[in-house]
Amino acid sequence: MELGDSGLTLAINAAMSAAGFLVCFNIIPKFKDMFIKANLFGVDMSKRTKSKIPESMGVICGAVYLIIMFLFIPVPFYKHLADNRKGNFPYHEYIEYLAALLSVCCMIFLGFADDVLNLKWRHKLLLPTMASLPLLTVYFVNFNSTTIIVPKPFRALFGFDLDLGVLYYVYMGMLAVFCTNAINILSGVNGLEVGQSWIICVSVLLHNFIELTGPQHQAHVFSIYFLMPFLGVCSALLCYNWYPSRVFVGDTFCYFAGMTFAVVAILAHFSKTMMLFFVPQVLNFLYSVPQLFRLVPCPRHRLPSYDPETDKVGMSYTKFKTSQLKPLGKVCIFIFKTLRVIDIKECIGENGDVTEVNNFTLNNFILKLCGPLHERTLVIILLSLQAIFSVVAFVIRYQVARLFYG
Amino acid sequence: MELGDSGLTLAINAAMSAAGFLVCFNIIPKFKDMFIKANLFGVDMSKRTKSKIPESMGVICGAVYLIIMFLFIPVPFYKHLADNRKGNFPYHEYIEYLAALLSVCCMIFLGFADDVLNLKWRHKLLLPTMASLPLLTVYFVNFNSTTIIVPKPFRALFGFDLDLGVLYYVYMGMLAVFCTNAINILSGVNGLEVGQSWIICVSVLLHNFIELTGPQHQAHVFSIYFLMPFLGVCSALLCYNWYPSRVFVGDTFCYFAGMTFAVVAILAHFSKTMMLFFVPQVLNFLYSVPQLFRLVPCPRHRLPSYDPETDKVGMSYTKFKTSQLKPLGKVCIFIFKTLRVIDIKECIGENGDVTEVNNFTLNNFILKLCGPLHERTLVIILLSLQAIFSVVAFVIRYQVARLFYG
Repeated sequence: MELGDSGLTLAINAAMSAAGFLVCFNIIPKFKDMFIKANLFGVDMSKRTKSKIPESMGVICGAVYLIIMFLFIPVPFYKHLADNRKGNFPYHEYIEYLAALLSVCCMIFLGFADDVLNLKWRHKLLLPTMASLPLLTVYFVNFNSTTIIVPKPFRALFGFDLDLGVLYYVYMGMLAVFCTNAINILSGVNGLEVGQSWIICVSVLLHNFIELTGPQHQAHVFSIYFLMPFLGVCSALLCYNWYPSRVFVGDTFCYFAGMTFAVVAILAHFSKTMMLFFVPQVLNFLYSVPQLFRLVPCPRHRLPSYDPETDKVGMSYTKFKTSQLKPLGKVCIFIFKTLRVIDIKECIGENGDVTEVNNFTLNNFILKLCGPLHERTLVIILLSLQAIFSVVAFVIRYQVARLFYG
Repeated sequence: MELGDSGLTLAINAAMSAAGFLVCFNIIPKFKDMFIKANLFGVDMSKRTKSKIPESMGVICGAVYLIIMFLFIPVPFYKHLADNRKGNFPYHEYIEYLAALLSVCCMIFLGFADDVLNLKWRHKLLLPTMASLPLLTVYFVNFNSTTIIVPKPFRALFGFDLDLGVLYYVYMGMLAVFCTNAINILSGVNGLEVGQSWIICVSVLLHNFIELTGPQHQAHVFSIYFLMPFLGVCSALLCYNWYPSRVFVGDTFCYFAGMTFAVVAILAHFSKTMMLFFVPQVLNFLYSVPQLFRLVPCPRHRLPSYDPETDKVGMSYTKFKTSQLKPLGKVCIFIFKTLRVIDIKECIGENGDVTEVNNFTLNNFILKLCGPLHERTLVIILLSLQAIFSVVAFVIRYQVARLFYG
């Protein structure tokens, strides 16, 4: 396929993405009451007013996204569809679209089920793994390239390239699970989930457009097809989710966004570059590990604590008996304390020593550095950080990578 | 592919279906509390006790079904997957599996969204149409056979065969919409939705197994792959949904079942035979038309009315001012009255004439013929009717069809 061909289909995709934005922008307010009536609402814990805010609105974006993609996928194949008799339909390409949509659709479904039912952690890990299976099968039959180029410093050890074999599939499966959950745990402040997804999406699109002239043209066109409509629906949601939020996005949106990124990273072969755009999420995940794996007690919500008098948010804490801490938890706290990345208070209570540490989230870490902030300021700092990391990612991808890979 | 090959994969599919049954049978009771806590419950209006019964339990079957299918779909391709280097992977077959699963997954998602949010009719028609698009695209590239053989009596008029062109796609799209909604509207009595799906599924499987030795071997193997796991999860649900219901199945199950049938009918090319198994649903739909299209007032629930004293269910009625009836509504009522298929009471009220007719459902029609019945008796009659129509369908398919098609 030549660039001229993709030009037209990209334009159609862009137009449909714009339509997706408009549709979402128009219908989201109309669905508010329906969601509240269905018991899908939350109260914003960081606001003075305690009104009902509709929750899981990401499901509308997800449904609109699926419809756009269903209508769009015949478009890139229009020549072959019009000329079917020759029997040269590019099945191997079409199959990637279907597998990608199947995984995304599955995750929207799972996310919505999670919002409604409050699923357990084992479901949250099992189901994305299952949902990525069709994707991995397609990767297997279409590419099955499990060889990675070894970075220069390690070539003495491993040679020029290394066949990871089945490990590469484990890596991709884990990528899907990571992406879907990583956005979900960097949350708790108005506009953060959608904002970070928006920045990641724009960054990846920029990367795709830069690479359009390169040898992997077709893969990046594929990625753009999936990400522009995502950007459309995501932008509409951001308008309503930005501080002060009139709608909440729910796990539905986080899973939907995460799986969309995982899908394009896997099928368009830029999972390493994608990870560069996920650095804040990776940092937040690593910082969160002691609480996620319950080595340190983890409250149900870890969002910053709100002070109605100053209208600012500050660090939130978890409090527990020091003696109840597991050995591994002690090690984690010792490491974090030494690295000075946590705020810790140890005091002698009536029934033994009590430890109080801030919840291990990037939000709290920023608040530890800056002191209490207005919620909007905190979001802007966090999103700026995300944008800065994107710039760094581009520098690494296009400059530093040369040093390592030549 | 030879029968020996399919033999092994069919056995694996059967084993996985049995596993699906066991998993569903075990986990459905465990999820009860989670559903009730999430506000997903109903009170059985045809029982003396008014306890909370978890609703939308079909979503568990749907999720288990998807997991089974994700794990199963590589199996029929195991030879090709093991022998990937030759590049002869049967993409055109694999693509059917993905498109089918995509449509089913979409409908499970839509069904669950409908259960939670109570969607409007326009969504219920729009979304299945969209969900069937990938299916139709695959049909287009794989077969694009829009020619039907004309039955003998009409051959003088149309010739031996007739190319329906784009109309054939409209027909298939409508088939998907019909199947997903037809099961949903033949409901309201414990065990009816799952029971009818179970009977249709067994009938279609029987048809598939009979046809295994025929020229369409591969298509019927495909259908069996999708229907045996469905039968597994459906059987488990039936155990809990049978009178007296301990769980309700929700729109989720009806859409899931309907789309699974539509998918195999379209991709395995036996939509006419499928319709033969749907005769009770077609009759119920035709009978319901005046109420579905709001020509005659339609209450929110049309289930039979319960008499706690006798523990029996009788006909339920809709009551309205005769003058408010639309002209088309009057025509419908006149026709049904002439055909003696409705029970009608006309009386003179204070503010003008009032008409009372039974709700237009197959359930009410049976109750009109038999008088009030115990709920379990009514279900057994309805399901026996479904089974009898299946037998008739086989006679038509294998005996009468010869007369018409030679």
